[in-house]
Amino acid sequence: MLKIDAARLCESIETLGRIGAYLDEHTSLTGVNRLALTDADGEGRRHVVGLMRELGLEVTVDRIGNVYARRAGREDALPPVVIGSHVDSVPTAGRFDGCLGVLGGLEIVRTLDEARIRTRRPIVVAFFTDEEGSRFGTDMLGSAVATGRLALERAYALRDRQGLSVRDELERIGFLGPAPVDAQQRMPPHAYLECHIEQGPILRAREQDIGVVTGVQAISWQALTITGKSAHAGTTPMSLRADAGVAAAKINLRLREMIASARYGDEMRATMGTIVPHPGMVNIVPGRVLATVDLRNPSEEDMRRAEADLISYYPQVEREEKVRIEWRQTARTEPVPFDPKIQDRIAEAAEALGLSHERIISGAGHDAQELARLCPTAMVFVPGEYDGISHNPREHSTPEQCAAGVNVMLQVVLQLADE
Amino acid sequence: MLKIDAARLCESIETLGRIGAYLDEHTSLTGVNRLALTDADGEGRRHVVGLMRELGLEVTVDRIGNVYARRAGREDALPPVVIGSHVDSVPTAGRFDGCLGVLGGLEIVRTLDEARIRTRRPIVVAFFTDEEGSRFGTDMLGSAVATGRLALERAYALRDRQGLSVRDELERIGFLGPAPVDAQQRMPPHAYLECHIEQGPILRAREQDIGVVTGVQAISWQALTITGKSAHAGTTPMSLRADAGVAAAKINLRLREMIASARYGDEMRATMGTIVPHPGMVNIVPGRVLATVDLRNPSEEDMRRAEADLISYYPQVEREEKVRIEWRQTARTEPVPFDPKIQDRIAEAAEALGLSHERIISGAGHDAQELARLCPTAMVFVPGEYDGISHNPREHSTPEQCAAGVNVMLQVVLQLADE
Repeated sequence: MLKIDAARLCESIETLGRIGAYLDEHTSLTGVNRLALTDADGEGRRHVVGLMRELGLEVTVDRIGNVYARRAGREDALPPVVIGSHVDSVPTAGRFDGCLGVLGGLEIVRTLDEARIRTRRPIVVAFFTDEEGSRFGTDMLGSAVATGRLALERAYALRDRQGLSVRDELERIGFLGPAPVDAQQRMPPHAYLECHIEQGPILRAREQDIGVVTGVQAISWQALTITGKSAHAGTTPMSLRADAGVAAAKINLRLREMIASARYGDEMRATMGTIVPHPGMVNIVPGRVLATVDLRNPSEEDMRRAEADLISYYPQVEREEKVRIEWRQTARTEPVPFDPKIQDRIAEAAEALGLSHERIISGAGHDAQELARLCPTAMVFVPGEYDGISHNPREHSTPEQCAAGVNVMLQVVLQLADE
Repeated sequence: MLKIDAARLCESIETLGRIGAYLDEHTSLTGVNRLALTDADGEGRRHVVGLMRELGLEVTVDRIGNVYARRAGREDALPPVVIGSHVDSVPTAGRFDGCLGVLGGLEIVRTLDEARIRTRRPIVVAFFTDEEGSRFGTDMLGSAVATGRLALERAYALRDRQGLSVRDELERIGFLGPAPVDAQQRMPPHAYLECHIEQGPILRAREQDIGVVTGVQAISWQALTITGKSAHAGTTPMSLRADAGVAAAKINLRLREMIASARYGDEMRATMGTIVPHPGMVNIVPGRVLATVDLRNPSEEDMRRAEADLISYYPQVEREEKVRIEWRQTARTEPVPFDPKIQDRIAEAAEALGLSHERIISGAGHDAQELARLCPTAMVFVPGEYDGISHNPREHSTPEQCAAGVNVMLQVVLQLADE
C-alpha cells in the first residue's frame, strides 16, 4: 500500500509553524499567531503557494483569497477531488489546526508524484481564507463565499476591531486574486476531503487512531451589547447602579448552567469568549459591555431550544440589572451530515492500514461543512495530545498520529480520483 | 458678607471643561477626558497655571508635578491655608470633578483681590497630580507623594498599559518640576480645605445645599490575575475546561452578594470595573483574565471583614473552576476622619449664608485624605444633579450649587487665614 513520508510531512508542519511563531510567556511554549489577512498570514500563504509551485501545481487565487492548486488528471476535464483546509490561525494557536489538512494534501501530491501515479480525475489542494473568524467575526469566510452561502460584497465589508476591511486587507497582503469566487459552484468537485486534528479529547481517551467524522454540529454566535450606566464606584449606591459587567457575569454563569442541564442534550457547549467593559477602569461601574456567546450542539432541535431559552433570559437580566441587552447573530450554521459512503471508505482505509477508528461528530466548524453543499464531503480526524487541546500553544499531534490521518486520506483520494 | 462671583466661577469651569472634551456617541453629551499626564492633562494644567499667573500668584511645580500657587499674607512666614484638588480626570468624566475645587480656590483669590483683602497667613491654591489613578493604577498619586505616604521613586516607576512611566510622562508634558516633593511635610499647612462635588445622590435627595464632610471611607483595590486554560470553545467538554472568564463572573456576582449582606454594614460598595479576558476571542475559552476589585467602606472593621471574606472565597473558585487566582493590593487606605473644629466652622458658615447643610461621609477618595496626615483638614461637598452621577458626561452641578460651596469655603478660609 502506498504511504506518505511521515517525517517529511511533519517537517513541513514545523516549517510553516515557524511563521507567526511567538513565545508564550506563561507557558514558555512556542505558539503561532497567523490571524487572517495579517502580515503573518500573508507570509504563511506565500510559503504554502511556494510549496505548491515547487510541486508543479497550477495555482489559482480567487477574489476572496482562496487558493487552489491543481494537479492534472488523465481525464483532465472531469470534476476534481478537492483536498482542503486553512492556514490562518487564532492568535494563540498551535501548529496543526488547518495546516495538517493543507500540508497533508501537498504530501499526498508529493507521494503520487514519486510513485508516478496519474489519477483519472484532477486533484486540487486548496486553502480557504479566514476559517477561524477570530479577526473579522465570521468563520469559514472563504469557503462560505466560494460555496455561495455568503455574498462576496458582504464578506469584503467585514471589518476588524481597528476598522480594517477584509477587502483592503486581502489587497494589502497580495491575495485579492483575479479568479471568480463561484468556480466551485459552476463545476462542483467530485468530492471534498479534509484531514484535521480533532481539537478534543475523545479519540485520545479511547485510544483511537482515526476519527471518521459523521458531520459538524450546529454553531450559533451572538454579539451582545449590554448598556447600563457608568458611575463612580465609590459613591453610587446599589439602588442607582446599572452595572453592565454584572449583567454579563450573570449571562456567563447562565451559559454554565445551561451546559449542565439535560434540557439541551449531553454535548451542548457554551462559551463567553470576549468581554469588553467600558470604560474599563478600576473605579468606574462599567456602563457598557460588549460580549460574545458561542453555542454548539450536534442537534438542531437542542440548539434551537438553547437559543430560545438564552434569549428569553435576557429580559430578566435587563430588569434585575436595569440594563439594556441588544444581541445580534454573527454566525449560525445548522448541523451538517457528511457523506455516508465516503465515511465507509475512510473506515475501510483505516482498517486496511491497521488503524483503529471510530465515528465522531465534529465539535468545531470546518471548511468541509461549507463544501458539503456542493459535493459529497467527509473528514478524517486525528487525535491530539493533552486532551486534544487546541487554540493553544500546547496543541500537539505526534508524527505517527498525523501520518495515520494523511495515509487514510491518500487511500480514499486514490479511490475517489479514479472513479 | 463677602461673596464670590458665581457666573465667573462657572465660566471658568466651562472653559477648563473644553480641554479634553469629546462627544459621547451614546448620550450625545460632551464628556471630558484629561487622563493624568496625557497631552490633554498637560493642556489643562497649562491653562490653570496661566490663570494662577494672571492672578499674580507665585507658582511652584514639584518633582511629582503638583502645582502650588501662593498668595502672600501679611505675615508671610506663617504656615499657609492650602486650598486644593485636582484637574486630571477619568476617561469618561464631566467638568466638575476636581476642577470645582481648584477653580473655586482661584475664584476665592480673585474675590479677595477685588475686595483688597490681605489675609494674615498666605493662601495657597494647589492641584495634585493624578488624583484619579485611572491610568497608572494608584490614585491620589501626587498628594500621597507630597505627604510622604508614597516614595517618589515608586511613583515614578508606575507604568500605564502601554508601558509608559509616570516619570517619563511628567517630563514629556513639561511638569517634572524642580521643587522638592516634601515641602509640605517640612512646613505643614495651617489647614487644608477642599471643595468637591459629592459624586453621590444623598445631598440632592435630601435637598441639602452643603455637605459637611466628616471623613473619607476606606478604599481597597485589588488587581486579579485569573489563570485557567485557553481551549477550543466548540470541542472542549466542561470537564476539561478551566474558564477564567467564568471564574471572574463568579467573583463579580460574589461582590454583588457582599453588598447586599448586612455583614459589612449598610454602606459597603464593591465593583469589578475592569475585566480583560485573554485571548478574548468568540471561539476560545478564556485562558486568563485580568480584573480589578474596588471595595469601599466607612468602617475599617467592616472593610477588613469584607477583604478577608473575599480573599477566602478565591480558593473556592480556584477549586470549582480549576483556575489559579493571584491578587495583589494596588491601593488601600483606611477611613480618614476630618478635623471636627473645621467641620463646625463649615456648618456655621453655611448657616450664616442661609444654606442648608448636613454631615456626610465621602464615598470617593480625595487628596484631602492625604493632606489630613499633615494638618487640620476638611472638605465641603456640593450636590449634583441626576442622582449626583459622576465619572460620566452627565455629571452636573448648577451654578448656584457650585457657588454655594465656594462661598462657604471663602468664609472658612477668611477665618483660618487670619488665625
